[in-house]
Amino acid sequence: MLVLITYDVSVTTDAGKRRLRRVAKQCVNYGQRVQNSVFECLVDPTQFAELKHRLEAIIDVETDSLRYYFLGNNWKNRIEHIGAKTAYDPEGVLMI
Amino acid sequence: MLVLITYDVSVTTDAGKRRLRRVAKQCVNYGQRVQNSVFECLVDPTQFAELKHRLEAIIDVETDSLRYYFLGNNWKNRIEHIGAKTAYDPEGVLMI
Repeated sequence: MLVLITYDVSVTTDAGKRRLRRVAKQCVNYGQRVQNSVFECLVDPTQFAELKHRLEAIIDVETDSLRYYFLGNNWKNRIEHIGAKTAYDPEGVLMI
Repeated sequence: MLVLITYDVSVTTDAGKRRLRRVAKQCVNYGQRVQNSVFECLVDPTQFAELKHRLEAIIDVETDSLRYYFLGNNWKNRIEHIGAKTAYDPEGVLMI
């Protein structure tokens, strides 16, 4: 199943940038980074449980927000892209 | 139906920040801003066509990216949130 993961973190601090890099690193094990803080992960329920556990250990729940959107197995018809196709560093190292 | 809209723009420039504000302003007419550049819009097909047309007139297709995710009518079971619930200004004016 495809799980879309969106992550909101303040990248005005070095700690925030580091958390974003760490979240990206986990997510790209299961999929791809499609925007700066948007990840599409192809996982089965066990993998999702593991990924979720790891992500929630990284984020700061007081300041950051993480949303999961479950797009199921027929996700290909559910996505449309407009504009630039940004190539993100697969290591998740992003300078902004 | 719920359409999730994610928008990637460089906010290091004033023009980019302005485009993000304009995208937010359009999206919040139909829903809410759930993260900095993530919007959940409740629209029928006609409204979505209008919104899409407006958004694509705002963005710079050379540098920005816009993704639509169609979550259908049974979207409530498809979303999970973890962490901070950030209150975004409904006018879409966001300082970062």
